[in-house]
Amino acid sequence: MKKMRTAVVGYGGMGGWHVEHLLKSDVCELAGIYDIRRERNELAESRGIHAYRSYRELLQDDSVELITVAIPNDSHEQVVIDALNAGKHVICEKPVALSLESLDRMIDAAERNGVRFTTHQNRRWDVDFLAMKQIAESGEIGKVLNIESRVHGSRGIPSDWRGEKSHGGGMMYDWGIHLIDQILMILGWDVKTVYCVCDHITNKEVDDGFRLELTLESGQRATIELGTYNFIAMPRFYMRAEKGTALITDWREEAQVVRCKHWHENDVLPVKTAAGLTKTMAPRDEVTTDTYRVARPASDVHDYYRHFVNAIRNGEAQDVTYEQMRTDLKIILAAFRSDELGVPVTVD
Amino acid sequence: MKKMRTAVVGYGGMGGWHVEHLLKSDVCELAGIYDIRRERNELAESRGIHAYRSYRELLQDDSVELITVAIPNDSHEQVVIDALNAGKHVICEKPVALSLESLDRMIDAAERNGVRFTTHQNRRWDVDFLAMKQIAESGEIGKVLNIESRVHGSRGIPSDWRGEKSHGGGMMYDWGIHLIDQILMILGWDVKTVYCVCDHITNKEVDDGFRLELTLESGQRATIELGTYNFIAMPRFYMRAEKGTALITDWREEAQVVRCKHWHENDVLPVKTAAGLTKTMAPRDEVTTDTYRVARPASDVHDYYRHFVNAIRNGEAQDVTYEQMRTDLKIILAAFRSDELGVPVTVD
Repeated sequence: MKKMRTAVVGYGGMGGWHVEHLLKSDVCELAGIYDIRRERNELAESRGIHAYRSYRELLQDDSVELITVAIPNDSHEQVVIDALNAGKHVICEKPVALSLESLDRMIDAAERNGVRFTTHQNRRWDVDFLAMKQIAESGEIGKVLNIESRVHGSRGIPSDWRGEKSHGGGMMYDWGIHLIDQILMILGWDVKTVYCVCDHITNKEVDDGFRLELTLESGQRATIELGTYNFIAMPRFYMRAEKGTALITDWREEAQVVRCKHWHENDVLPVKTAAGLTKTMAPRDEVTTDTYRVARPASDVHDYYRHFVNAIRNGEAQDVTYEQMRTDLKIILAAFRSDELGVPVTVD
Repeated sequence: MKKMRTAVVGYGGMGGWHVEHLLKSDVCELAGIYDIRRERNELAESRGIHAYRSYRELLQDDSVELITVAIPNDSHEQVVIDALNAGKHVICEKPVALSLESLDRMIDAAERNGVRFTTHQNRRWDVDFLAMKQIAESGEIGKVLNIESRVHGSRGIPSDWRGEKSHGGGMMYDWGIHLIDQILMILGWDVKTVYCVCDHITNKEVDDGFRLELTLESGQRATIELGTYNFIAMPRFYMRAEKGTALITDWREEAQVVRCKHWHENDVLPVKTAAGLTKTMAPRDEVTTDTYRVARPASDVHDYYRHFVNAIRNGEAQDVTYEQMRTDLKIILAAFRSDELGVPVTVD
């Protein structure tokens, strides 16, 4: 099959990632890039990558079918809508929009022009997330009670536009949207309430971390925590289920699972801790539990472009649907409202 | 100095602990025990421990100066007040009371009778807690931003009276009061708001676990989590501070500390994870951080009785003050209210 000619708008960090990725793609062919900063276009050309002289010129290139938009969050809407109106399919970096109205205008433009529009939820291909999803879906430890997802760094918020509110900065938009999306891919999309406390340790204007609690209609719960002031990282994933617990300490590690074979034990000896006894907290042994590791699932992030190109060519459903894009954003907006009000808020 | 004659009321799990402890004490001498269950008294006698024939007989023993009460939580008040009215000093197991009114009646009785009354916050001698307190107080990683304290077991709630609401069962009363007390010993006692979600996995009547969020007047925050359905335990303590992070994985382990020496770095290379790049989450190295372990502080839980006997004999302040007892209980009551209402509540 002929590769789909694809252009990238914005040649910063993520734009560069897309370019590198597209150069190796088996479904796309890089047509070129465009960045509003002249020096970024020159850098691209010095690397042998075609740089369009203007965004208008890019849109007028009829050979281009797909445009990937990787520019600051507050600039997405007009660029995306112009591309959709030019009849191009569009992948937009996350978060696509900072308001539901803005997102809906983009979705409308896509539908009006009969083209495809989606967002780059590349972290659906993270092996740690996929391992937790596999454990949850296999039923091997029963129904999930709650999941905790944590990503901890120690560099504060990046010093670029991600630190500025007007550009849609902050860690909720940068990482939150991935971590929320992952959780809902595991637990489903029916979120009832959201409670959020944001950090402002290195930045007063935008959140430089947060702890977000989701309660689903099913009663299942999730904790999503992002930290940029954590010099030691807590475990990446933790999941309690009706018949066991799963843990991933770090994205480089396999999942550990402890499955409960028998609930009751005959003889429980209390554990003596420093300053007291406890029977409740005495550890279990292999008589009542199985302990094992889960090999990391295979994952190829190239499937992101493969699936989207396939959806375009064959009219199939796209991986990241409009409804999912709306729900991910609704939860972020509810999280900000919760943080502001200091109470859990309902997601409608 | 002459040892203080001490009797124990209730010869169950914790009563047995006190008896064992008192038999080795260098400040107390065990006068005997009393339990309402005849077989427990017989068990004591078979072990060479004097068992009083009635509680009245115990109270009439003028040689007894101190009584330790270790019976179900809902029975504390009358037993404690009878002892105080008999002119005995009293140590009562935690939680002393299930309402502030009940606690205040006991405090009043102590003051009216000119005797001492306190509660058994033995976990102030836990070495893991003491290590975190030492790190916080030393200032070696600056002012504390937030602390997380977790205790995870996998046996559900004990099948005795701890599973019954009428007896003051549930994990909040059983463990929560220790974990709250420890946190306030580190962060201070001015709690502003409490948010709590209780678990009911193995028991519908009482909480078999909880996650409790405290916000202090200082802005510092704490997360206290107790689980009885966690087949893998998350780290025991985690503390973020202005210049670093401290972690204790397990009460058998030393604290790990990462201290930030220099905030800025010249060259940060992005980390490539499975499905994306991140500069924000790139780990730091020894150029900007120091990593070290903190030896476990010395701790002797016998100091609990030593200090209280000393307070009685020399009129000094007791370790666990009435104000602290009231605050610990206020937070528990606020936590239950928060769980019921589904919102954070203010502590007055």
